[in-house]
Amino acid sequence: MKTVKIGLLGCGTVGSGVVEILRMNADLIAERCGARIEIEKIFFKNHRKHREPFVEDRATYDIRDVVMNPSIDIVVELAGKEHPAYEFIVTALQNGKHVVTANKDVMALHGCELETMARDRGVRLMYEASVCGAIPVMKALTESLSANKFTKISGIVNGTSNYILSKMTSDGADFYETLAEAQRLGFAEADPESDIDGLDAARKIIILAAKAFGVWKTLDEVQTTGIRHISAASISDAKAAGCVYKLIAQAECDDRVINLSVEPRRLPFDHPLAVVNDTFNAVFVEGNACGSLMFYGRGAGALPTGSAVVGDIMEIAKAI
Amino acid sequence: MKTVKIGLLGCGTVGSGVVEILRMNADLIAERCGARIEIEKIFFKNHRKHREPFVEDRATYDIRDVVMNPSIDIVVELAGKEHPAYEFIVTALQNGKHVVTANKDVMALHGCELETMARDRGVRLMYEASVCGAIPVMKALTESLSANKFTKISGIVNGTSNYILSKMTSDGADFYETLAEAQRLGFAEADPESDIDGLDAARKIIILAAKAFGVWKTLDEVQTTGIRHISAASISDAKAAGCVYKLIAQAECDDRVINLSVEPRRLPFDHPLAVVNDTFNAVFVEGNACGSLMFYGRGAGALPTGSAVVGDIMEIAKAI
Repeated sequence: MKTVKIGLLGCGTVGSGVVEILRMNADLIAERCGARIEIEKIFFKNHRKHREPFVEDRATYDIRDVVMNPSIDIVVELAGKEHPAYEFIVTALQNGKHVVTANKDVMALHGCELETMARDRGVRLMYEASVCGAIPVMKALTESLSANKFTKISGIVNGTSNYILSKMTSDGADFYETLAEAQRLGFAEADPESDIDGLDAARKIIILAAKAFGVWKTLDEVQTTGIRHISAASISDAKAAGCVYKLIAQAECDDRVINLSVEPRRLPFDHPLAVVNDTFNAVFVEGNACGSLMFYGRGAGALPTGSAVVGDIMEIAKAI
Repeated sequence: MKTVKIGLLGCGTVGSGVVEILRMNADLIAERCGARIEIEKIFFKNHRKHREPFVEDRATYDIRDVVMNPSIDIVVELAGKEHPAYEFIVTALQNGKHVVTANKDVMALHGCELETMARDRGVRLMYEASVCGAIPVMKALTESLSANKFTKISGIVNGTSNYILSKMTSDGADFYETLAEAQRLGFAEADPESDIDGLDAARKIIILAAKAFGVWKTLDEVQTTGIRHISAASISDAKAAGCVYKLIAQAECDDRVINLSVEPRRLPFDHPLAVVNDTFNAVFVEGNACGSLMFYGRGAGALPTGSAVVGDIMEIAKAI
């Protein structure tokens, strides 16, 4: 059986998930993709202690050991944030590496350029994990549903804001109180702006729209409203009217005009998106043949996001 | 641009959907798969009148014009039922044709043999449309989610029984009364046994289990109970307890033992499958990395099922 060597950039939450999946499902993965996937190197920015031996043995602090390493076939970028992840991906592509990334910031801002670069070099650039973790919506849009002219993509794509709105709905609590609790429990970051002001969702809808409509829009083209202004009173008014608030990211294509938005909306209790609670994500797809479809699942976390990353790695490994 | 020629076996509901999609989305399909898909021949068992000219021009009553036609690359089997569809597929594969089918009867009963035959001949056999119409769950199981060890697949996979249970729940009506109304409206067939006694769902769970666990089970290995015995009283009792009845098909893998069942179950109102109403289908997937995922959409109908058929055709066309 052939061996495909990969190098990881970063090994935080998602990276640990990838390492764990490749270990616990090793035989099954080898059998399904006809290749043993081996982690050759793991790049870290900083020296740190108490890493497990498997990770420590492969650790490097020189990015060139991964992106320019002739024995590595696939570079798996899990460093997060725009810089220097963008530069890492560019260098990897320039060196003829296939790239798998979970990085929504880089893809939303540089997706068009990076896809062109990958095509020109004859390598694959895959990023299923950049939107909605384990939910395989990207591959559905580009492969299974490719017979469709899409008309609308909409969904709950940010776990933090959905957790906050769900908690406000179930407990009747205030926004800032719920945010503080979410931060204490690890469901919201110390800097929660990107999640609660809708920017994270805006990046994801840019990526989904690119897959569905073939056009990369920019962040300032997304009409974005967050959830800060949703009060306990708005939530209970909605409830009385048989509705719940959800932060909905949407891309609509009407006669070649593509409109992108992120905003809190009131949905009736029996709407399929209304039962998507806590940190779950869900994406609705509407096409002129398939009708309405929904994909629902875990949008974040080590193993769910790792599932999408390893799925992409396996697809490339099969073809190598 | 290359041209890929296909031949249809049958042109009923799903066939008309395929013809319509290939026509309305022709440019987009050609662009996405790098090939023009042309319908060369359409096989019919019986002479009939009043077909549209496009279909009439391609009609043949000799099966060999499709399955043994040297100019046809892909045979698209949409005849339905076990025989003679099974024999048509075998002959097509033996003649080196790629095959796309929407036929759950043939795949549930002969899937193992036909997959081996296709592999041995080096051709593709694809059947996304055989389970849950437009919902791309098969490709998700075998590609996007292939990093997972699956533990359970469960779902609402039969539209007719779901329509009946939904109507009984909303209207408080009796089973046979609702069935008669469903037949009048075209949501149930004149011979409804296969749908209401769970056999249709049993066939679909066999196919899903084969994709998830790599093992083809037989019909008598599926513990099957239908919905005939569900009375208006059972429905209202469930309602009072905050539950709804759904016909659930399930495949569970526990320590290498795979158990398949189809049975009506009571689900709490806030279960994601509880809001899957009318003729909609939904499939839950549980894996050791992805966690719980749900796919929801139209499980039948000309265009939704056609969407899955054309998706498979495009994947083969890309690779030819």
